[in-house]
Amino acid sequence: MLNITLPGGDIRQVEAGTTVEALCRDISMGLFRAATAARVDGAVVDLRTPLTADCAVEILTFNDEDGRKAYRHTVSHILAQAVMHLFPNAKFAIGPAIDNGYYYDFDVERAFTPEDLAAIEAEMQAIIKQELPIERFELDVAEAEKLMADQPYKLELIAEHAGKGEKISFYRQGDFVDLCAGPHLLTTGGIKAVKLLSATGAYWRGSEKNKMLQRIYGTAFPKRSELDAWIEQQEEAKKRDHNKLGRELELFTTSDVIGQGLPILLPKGARVIQLLQRFVEDEEQKRGWLLTKTPLMAKSDLYKISGHWDHYRDGMFVLGDAEKADEEEVFALRPMTCPFQYQAYLNRARSYRDLPMRLAETSTLFRNEASGEMHGLIRVRQFTISEGHLMCTDEQLKDEFRKCLELCTFMLQTLGLYEDVSYRFSQWDPANTEKYIGTPEQWDEAQGLMKEILDDLGIQYKVGIGEAAFYGPKLDIQIKNVFGKEDTLITIQIDQMLAKTFGMEYVAKDGSKKNPCIIHRTSIGCYERTLALLIEKYAGAFPLWLAPEQIRILPITDRTADKAAEIQAALKAAGIERVEVDYDNEKIGYKIRRAQMEKIPYMLVVGDKEAENGEVAVRSRKNGDLGTMPLADFIAKATEEIENKTL
Amino acid sequence: MLNITLPGGDIRQVEAGTTVEALCRDISMGLFRAATAARVDGAVVDLRTPLTADCAVEILTFNDEDGRKAYRHTVSHILAQAVMHLFPNAKFAIGPAIDNGYYYDFDVERAFTPEDLAAIEAEMQAIIKQELPIERFELDVAEAEKLMADQPYKLELIAEHAGKGEKISFYRQGDFVDLCAGPHLLTTGGIKAVKLLSATGAYWRGSEKNKMLQRIYGTAFPKRSELDAWIEQQEEAKKRDHNKLGRELELFTTSDVIGQGLPILLPKGARVIQLLQRFVEDEEQKRGWLLTKTPLMAKSDLYKISGHWDHYRDGMFVLGDAEKADEEEVFALRPMTCPFQYQAYLNRARSYRDLPMRLAETSTLFRNEASGEMHGLIRVRQFTISEGHLMCTDEQLKDEFRKCLELCTFMLQTLGLYEDVSYRFSQWDPANTEKYIGTPEQWDEAQGLMKEILDDLGIQYKVGIGEAAFYGPKLDIQIKNVFGKEDTLITIQIDQMLAKTFGMEYVAKDGSKKNPCIIHRTSIGCYERTLALLIEKYAGAFPLWLAPEQIRILPITDRTADKAAEIQAALKAAGIERVEVDYDNEKIGYKIRRAQMEKIPYMLVVGDKEAENGEVAVRSRKNGDLGTMPLADFIAKATEEIENKTL
Repeated sequence: MLNITLPGGDIRQVEAGTTVEALCRDISMGLFRAATAARVDGAVVDLRTPLTADCAVEILTFNDEDGRKAYRHTVSHILAQAVMHLFPNAKFAIGPAIDNGYYYDFDVERAFTPEDLAAIEAEMQAIIKQELPIERFELDVAEAEKLMADQPYKLELIAEHAGKGEKISFYRQGDFVDLCAGPHLLTTGGIKAVKLLSATGAYWRGSEKNKMLQRIYGTAFPKRSELDAWIEQQEEAKKRDHNKLGRELELFTTSDVIGQGLPILLPKGARVIQLLQRFVEDEEQKRGWLLTKTPLMAKSDLYKISGHWDHYRDGMFVLGDAEKADEEEVFALRPMTCPFQYQAYLNRARSYRDLPMRLAETSTLFRNEASGEMHGLIRVRQFTISEGHLMCTDEQLKDEFRKCLELCTFMLQTLGLYEDVSYRFSQWDPANTEKYIGTPEQWDEAQGLMKEILDDLGIQYKVGIGEAAFYGPKLDIQIKNVFGKEDTLITIQIDQMLAKTFGMEYVAKDGSKKNPCIIHRTSIGCYERTLALLIEKYAGAFPLWLAPEQIRILPITDRTADKAAEIQAALKAAGIERVEVDYDNEKIGYKIRRAQMEKIPYMLVVGDKEAENGEVAVRSRKNGDLGTMPLADFIAKATEEIENKTL
Repeated sequence: MLNITLPGGDIRQVEAGTTVEALCRDISMGLFRAATAARVDGAVVDLRTPLTADCAVEILTFNDEDGRKAYRHTVSHILAQAVMHLFPNAKFAIGPAIDNGYYYDFDVERAFTPEDLAAIEAEMQAIIKQELPIERFELDVAEAEKLMADQPYKLELIAEHAGKGEKISFYRQGDFVDLCAGPHLLTTGGIKAVKLLSATGAYWRGSEKNKMLQRIYGTAFPKRSELDAWIEQQEEAKKRDHNKLGRELELFTTSDVIGQGLPILLPKGARVIQLLQRFVEDEEQKRGWLLTKTPLMAKSDLYKISGHWDHYRDGMFVLGDAEKADEEEVFALRPMTCPFQYQAYLNRARSYRDLPMRLAETSTLFRNEASGEMHGLIRVRQFTISEGHLMCTDEQLKDEFRKCLELCTFMLQTLGLYEDVSYRFSQWDPANTEKYIGTPEQWDEAQGLMKEILDDLGIQYKVGIGEAAFYGPKLDIQIKNVFGKEDTLITIQIDQMLAKTFGMEYVAKDGSKKNPCIIHRTSIGCYERTLALLIEKYAGAFPLWLAPEQIRILPITDRTADKAAEIQAALKAAGIERVEVDYDNEKIGYKIRRAQMEKIPYMLVVGDKEAENGEVAVRSRKNGDLGTMPLADFIAKATEEIENKTL
């Protein structure tokens, strides 16, 4: 008998060879009906997997990320099967589950039309209704090639396994077989609500050098009501999409002749970033950070020391011929700030009295990304980040790490983003050591130390294997955008390797020379990304302190135009800077609607009566008509709102 | 008889063939003794030149820039003659007059030692004492090659004239003959005070691909006393040299592994630039400029439209292979901001109501300069400039130009640099049209318009031929650094060409489509250069509002350390941010000296008595002991000084 440990610690005894499915049915039929896959000793597996040793088993459902993936991955096979029925000549590429759904890439004669998608979706429903059992089997390479003889993309994938002696796994459902690592549901009947979303072109393996395939995106949920709710939320999110709304509000634009991933911040967007930057720099300075301004490029020599040349060069823009870096001066744009700020530390000998040294920088970085991956303000080739490196003694490390985290928390709270974040402890991938510098012992030590700090601070995190920087582990503060897509906004890293590499030392109290510990961190992340998140969070309606135009004065007729100018001057004199007057000869209702559309926080309507009494009729974009009040009262109210950074 | 017009308008009659020398002797022997060359109808010529037609003649002396050049150029020949005597195998390259002196490049077996320089200088004195007559003669190319048969560098220069049928001019003094366009003095005896300054390596024609030659720098004056005064001023300047003092004060540093021309702004320097940038951006915003933030790179497509690809590519950093720009996406770093800000204008259709549109940007630019030309914060590969482009109607042009100039003047006055500037009207070079876009008619029009504006504004300027931008004429605000070297700090340009090239239009009042006029301008110039000028101007002692550390509190003993911290907090609460406490256990005299060395504007000494009375003993770096005063009084005084930006 095997001892199976369940979540919570209960132990069940089962016969060796019992499948996870049988175990699950035995636990609860309710759980079995929701089950999509399982985690056995940490590895995600099929429900059909037999148990052969004592282990820990967790049954996964749609509510677990990995369980959700198994569910949607199964739908992607159903999609492929439906395409096979309707487009018999289609060749099949790959079809993974992704955030919010799945896709499958096909080599077909023509692009899919909306009518095609409707027909394919109907065919998928038919396949689901048949409740086809899904069967897993393995073949060796030769057999696999025979089975997939008329599927060139599958053959290319199989060829990668050739010579390694591995078995290759397949899944069959009715007349459809796919090369696949799984896991998958037990039958197609396990799928409930499916929807195809769009079709688009996509290069085989993402490379422009390969053939353009046709990709179908879809999603799926266990209940129709969940699917409907998700669709509604997506519609709402689309209205907030920074890449649409940010352009409409003239916060940014792009230009074909400049290139993708290089957004142009128009006056309104540039102003928001200016305000954010000043806020961040001031707050950092208050907390003991010293600003630096280091060059945006360096010779390959610098990157060779830092390890970027060996571990990150594909992501860098090299000026000239990288291959000649050993013979002549070759410069590259910086993808990170670390080695540059280290030069500031290295400017003279340091002692323990200089530590902690907190160096901050509003730092522009460059990443050489493929054109296809560019998106709005989020996936870009150039961005500006609130960067910082902190050099300290071992003893100072924990306290300084806590202060870095406190600063981030303060920033997120001020911007109203704190409720949307979660934490990820990003570790190296021991199975992929060539991506990193340092030894397994050094990684164990650094990660152990970081775990201790995180646990001490009581931070709830999930672990991300293979998500570390090449020189050390990270705490990533993750945020979901309006579409539910998760991204890293902020990161704090512990680095016990680069100080030695760069010869950074300090004289300790006892006179010995030591290498400082280094914390790499950002306080607010990239300004462009933060702007995108704020646009989506507030649907373009920024809080008063950040709004590119804070107040618009609307004279009702020409008679009060001078008074409007006077009020504008009074507001500016009171330190409320971003005030415009709408002098256009239009009806007041039209002017109000226009200001409302442009998301101006306050409108001050000035008619004859208000002009005479030194008053303004205040309209809040959010709360509507606030009535008439003396100008001084409005100034006091607005000033307080700005100073408190009220959301 | 010829009619010779003298400066002031007097006319003298001389026989045809009379030399300038004879004319000069005739005017005044005093003038003749000071004369070094002459300007005949605008062209600088030898005194030995015969007059052959009616013309305007101006006798030049050491006090005229061109006269000074003739004087010092003659000394460079005397230097070469002395080297010939002492190093008989030397080969001669070139030896021009430069700002502050002259140099000559020699191909000799070894670098010159200080002892060599002393011996050469003595030999030069001997040559001067001999009062050798200097004779000019001309040869055709074949004869010239024969004369210079053992001088390979001269042969290379002569070869450039081959086939053009020109005569080549030479100057002989005693046993030394040099290929030279002149002009030169009449005898070596005309030279009075000479001094050799230094020796250094220099590539033939400035290219690393050529042989390294040995260059000797020297200077010369008409009087010993002037030479001595100049040497003293240079010594004083060296103490202020930003490249020395800026490093000592830890404002900036450089790093071999990052590369030349890429200064690292340390916390103090970065802070000064942060303060300057905020001051500039705020002032611009007050004056109606809208901030943008545009990308630092673009595809070659953009530069092909702007003309940079054809007219400026050598100065640009290209990412990847420039030759492939027609086939694939090639990016380049921007050397100027213009075409980027134009994309902001082009974001939507514009009408006359949108004009003038004033777009400002704190813009980082990149110039691919040769390594040998890098210097401190002045000659760099990357710099950040207060950039701006103003789009307006023809009618608005003059008024907007005036406002741009007023803004610059305000900036210069605030920084205390206004007294050091002069104006240059930079025009194209009609003899070198391939360097520019546009037709001669367009240039005549643009320059005519600019002249009208400058004359209307009453600006005193000199003309710089060939100093225009490739797309239009400029008003350059020139500044001399402490060494007397002149550089362009600020530039305002009128551009009537690029709007059309970029398809920038606006709908005029009459409904027709027009191209706006564009003013390219900076308000304060490059931040790095401005920082360098300020370091030199104030010998590192910045005015209070700009000082990276404004106030240092010096507790006399440990007993007043807490009080010092309290005072620091009180100052920060009052908005005086950059305040440090010197807690070191050192004598107060030592602490004062240290603060003085670090150029801290105010020191507040806190002893037991001051602590008890709530007072501070104030020491000004500039004015010494200001006595004891209540803290509140000092705060009021310092706040006023900061707000007024007192120099």
